[in-house]
Amino acid sequence: MTTLNERLSWRYATKAFDPSRQVPAEKLNAILEAVRLAPTSSGLQPFELLVVTTPEIRAKIRAVAWDQAQVTDCSHLLVFAAWDDITPERVNMMFDLTNEVRGFKNEGWEAYRQKLLGIVAERGTEANYQAAARQAYIGLGAALIAAAFEGVDATPMEGFDPEAVDEILGLKARHLRSVLLLPLGYRAAERDWLVNLQKVRRPAEQFISYVK
Amino acid sequence: MTTLNERLSWRYATKAFDPSRQVPAEKLNAILEAVRLAPTSSGLQPFELLVVTTPEIRAKIRAVAWDQAQVTDCSHLLVFAAWDDITPERVNMMFDLTNEVRGFKNEGWEAYRQKLLGIVAERGTEANYQAAARQAYIGLGAALIAAAFEGVDATPMEGFDPEAVDEILGLKARHLRSVLLLPLGYRAAERDWLVNLQKVRRPAEQFISYVK
Repeated sequence: MTTLNERLSWRYATKAFDPSRQVPAEKLNAILEAVRLAPTSSGLQPFELLVVTTPEIRAKIRAVAWDQAQVTDCSHLLVFAAWDDITPERVNMMFDLTNEVRGFKNEGWEAYRQKLLGIVAERGTEANYQAAARQAYIGLGAALIAAAFEGVDATPMEGFDPEAVDEILGLKARHLRSVLLLPLGYRAAERDWLVNLQKVRRPAEQFISYVK
Repeated sequence: MTTLNERLSWRYATKAFDPSRQVPAEKLNAILEAVRLAPTSSGLQPFELLVVTTPEIRAKIRAVAWDQAQVTDCSHLLVFAAWDDITPERVNMMFDLTNEVRGFKNEGWEAYRQKLLGIVAERGTEANYQAAARQAYIGLGAALIAAAFEGVDATPMEGFDPEAVDEILGLKARHLRSVLLLPLGYRAAERDWLVNLQKVRRPAEQFISYVK
């Protein structure tokens, strides 16, 4: 069996995609499902995932994303968009869903609902958005790993103008804010300057320490 | 072969660990290595991973982590600690390491170093810390998935007083700030109220949308 760490070594931030190759629906769905299954703080899943395939929209996004060619050359462009606030309605939606799925109300869970409602009310809109955005990075990690298992290339991107992307995709009206882009597709190895370069990570002794 | 999404369905935020069971070194190392291999923005890896095993230190952390028993009952407690700032020294350290590992200097890469140094200087300490903290969540995603592949249980935790944990672990002097805790170990199923409850996620149609 291929191990996770072999897949993590295989993947890299793809710089050139082959625009003629499409990711099959089955593989795309496995990647999207990994994001959906990924855990989030208090189980809120405080973000949404958009899949952009239209060339015109992707051209507009590329123009506000440092002109990175992967945005238009990839097979599917994923956009991770965090909740612009963690409102009581959103908290209640997830706690109600939990009760519905599990088929019962639990006193401890209801007490935790009230505690969380207090926390988000006190924290305020911007800090709630920041907390939501962090959760999207867990989803990104899951998507990257899922893509690597499917043999699909991907390029995680923070380098874009989030407000411009929000405008292009109409996210404000949906009370979402774009946080991350993730083009998916297949590398065009012959045009990709990064494909054969060694992956660089700090040695374990500079990254991991043991508290004894 | 077990699929990633089967492993994601298997895992859950473990509420009760069996304190008598230790995670073998081989499995622990595979989990730590997944975090080390996980991608980060500009390849900076702007966080560190601490492994805490000492009972006295874990008792102190539990006291500032809502008294959650997993902190002391787990086998290994991981602490994800982000850089408190993205300083020029830290940026240069990673860019220099890249040149060293790859064995050459590249004009495009050096131009990107200058661009990034400009970005972090303009952004300032607090926003740099926030950006670093987000990257730690990618690492968390990788750790959770790696643990699930190894059959190791884990509990991602934001519920603790970061400044108190920084104090306990002496992180300020290392210019780090604690962001996440991740107890690792083996579930004590007979004492865990969550173990048999259904996982709750929004249906795909409420989480994923297609822009056409």
